[in-house]
Amino acid sequence: MSKPLTIALDGMGGDVGPDIVVPAALRVLETAGDSLRLILVGQEDVLSAALLKAGGHPQIVIRHASQLVSMGESPAQALRVKKDSSMRVAINLVKQGEADACVSAGNTGALMATARFVLKTLPGIDRPAICTTLPTVRGQTRMLDLGANVDSKAEHLLQFAVMGSVLAAVNGIERPRVALLNIGEEDIKGNEQVREAARLLAASDLNYVGFVEGDGVYLEDADVVVCDGFVGNVALKSSEGVARLIRYYMTQEFKRNLLTRLAGLVALPVLRAFGRRIDPRRYNGASLLGLQGIVIKSHGGADALAFANAIGVAMLEVEQAVPRRIDAHLAALHAARQAL
Amino acid sequence: MSKPLTIALDGMGGDVGPDIVVPAALRVLETAGDSLRLILVGQEDVLSAALLKAGGHPQIVIRHASQLVSMGESPAQALRVKKDSSMRVAINLVKQGEADACVSAGNTGALMATARFVLKTLPGIDRPAICTTLPTVRGQTRMLDLGANVDSKAEHLLQFAVMGSVLAAVNGIERPRVALLNIGEEDIKGNEQVREAARLLAASDLNYVGFVEGDGVYLEDADVVVCDGFVGNVALKSSEGVARLIRYYMTQEFKRNLLTRLAGLVALPVLRAFGRRIDPRRYNGASLLGLQGIVIKSHGGADALAFANAIGVAMLEVEQAVPRRIDAHLAALHAARQAL
Repeated sequence: MSKPLTIALDGMGGDVGPDIVVPAALRVLETAGDSLRLILVGQEDVLSAALLKAGGHPQIVIRHASQLVSMGESPAQALRVKKDSSMRVAINLVKQGEADACVSAGNTGALMATARFVLKTLPGIDRPAICTTLPTVRGQTRMLDLGANVDSKAEHLLQFAVMGSVLAAVNGIERPRVALLNIGEEDIKGNEQVREAARLLAASDLNYVGFVEGDGVYLEDADVVVCDGFVGNVALKSSEGVARLIRYYMTQEFKRNLLTRLAGLVALPVLRAFGRRIDPRRYNGASLLGLQGIVIKSHGGADALAFANAIGVAMLEVEQAVPRRIDAHLAALHAARQAL
Repeated sequence: MSKPLTIALDGMGGDVGPDIVVPAALRVLETAGDSLRLILVGQEDVLSAALLKAGGHPQIVIRHASQLVSMGESPAQALRVKKDSSMRVAINLVKQGEADACVSAGNTGALMATARFVLKTLPGIDRPAICTTLPTVRGQTRMLDLGANVDSKAEHLLQFAVMGSVLAAVNGIERPRVALLNIGEEDIKGNEQVREAARLLAASDLNYVGFVEGDGVYLEDADVVVCDGFVGNVALKSSEGVARLIRYYMTQEFKRNLLTRLAGLVALPVLRAFGRRIDPRRYNGASLLGLQGIVIKSHGGADALAFANAIGVAMLEVEQAVPRRIDAHLAALHAARQAL
């Protein structure tokens, strides 16, 4: 019998904490079978009560942590004074080998800083990156970095491309198509970092397909879109903003009068199916890549379904040994460069 | 009787040229009265034929230009070898005072490079910027730069803020709220340029309201959002991509079967009203700001309604003397700094 897969869950992170994390844990265990163990990390009394209320589960254990990292707390502050936070203890469990991965809905900056401090980056990785899956007209794509770093150099963008390619590959995509996010307006296209990264990518063993502009992320067929963290964060959040603006306008139009409300009722099943299709919960679970360990960030406002999805992302990355694959790919890339 | 307002139109720019520009010109003249004159610039025989076909108009004259700048042509190439292009001649008319402004649906890079070369920037402006209006839950906002420049320094962002504020003011907004586009994830928020720009803005006479993230562009209440051109271009195009993705998914859902098609028929008037509400044509007409003259960029794929909207933007900027206002605001800013 193989060792059970063990995931540590930050039970106190996110906007609501255990009321989301406990139902999510139970939902995952319903389908995962006997080989999964979950460690709920946080204030023992609070977590015990939440677990008891939900009926408990033999595959869930609780690990006490006395502190919380709040959503607005600075990463530096969290690192310095929150050494017994649920987030930190969950990451420690990964470091100590007690857990194979951890999932937190806590403050992204603090999670990245703590994970980087505790787990360290892989050899050959200068900067970790945040990567998420996005829907496209063709299916889905992955985009990184989404805000772990700003002012990324060409070499960092190359490393992001390797990490994104590994993530696409473990999701079943052969020879993932890697694109660089760029703009089409400048005289000499884009900025110096992007142009240099294009040269590095073209010379690598990755399946580099060229530049993509912002709209192409959703409309073209790259499997991995690589960009600086400032740019990626703005692109992702702008996209979320527009999606919410569109929903707001549509709701207003359907609420305009009795006739439009009736039309809305008739169209409701279609609008619901459409809503499920673009449901951001289906894409919940961003990977912190480039670390010596697996850390998944769930959206702060995630519900149980969304958090369960993030646990699923963690399970896949454990089964597929994502950090080891990234390490191997980077080593091969460096060997190929030295052979030149 | 005051001198008629004169706008030069690049008759050959965009994906379709005169077949859009001529109907747009006629549409604007229907409501503009006697005080508007339009100069159609481009190949005389083509433009004459298009104008004749549309019935002609006494307030439209044609100015011959023998060359075309294609949509894919590099700005450097356009500058060097297209000295008699419709785009260049239209901008020359502004320089020579024969026109008060020009509108082109041509290649943005070439338009910006040519406008900058011919008209020059205002004193106190290091880099011109591209600014457009965007819909928000509250109404609308303006965002700049959208791709004229990359690697903007803090001082450039301050200049963009002045230009955006002037544009908001001439659109009837008193004390426009200016925000800086930033990300929320980094330890020390954002990059160095944005942090330094925040200090400059806070010390200026502008109504600086702080940082906004990508989603806040559409969901919060800034009247002007300032950013580097690379970032702004990616944000704008990502937003367009998501909007198209959503429309694609929704259309698919309504076409799924007979029942969903019927639901779509019932909901059609509401969906149409919604579509009009987010119609990008209503926002067509991006301003090239910071130049000694008024140049408006119409979307390459604009139809006559959209192009007419861009002509309307040009008319407003002429009536409100936007370049002079920007110049005056910058002079006041510099005087205030020197007095410190």
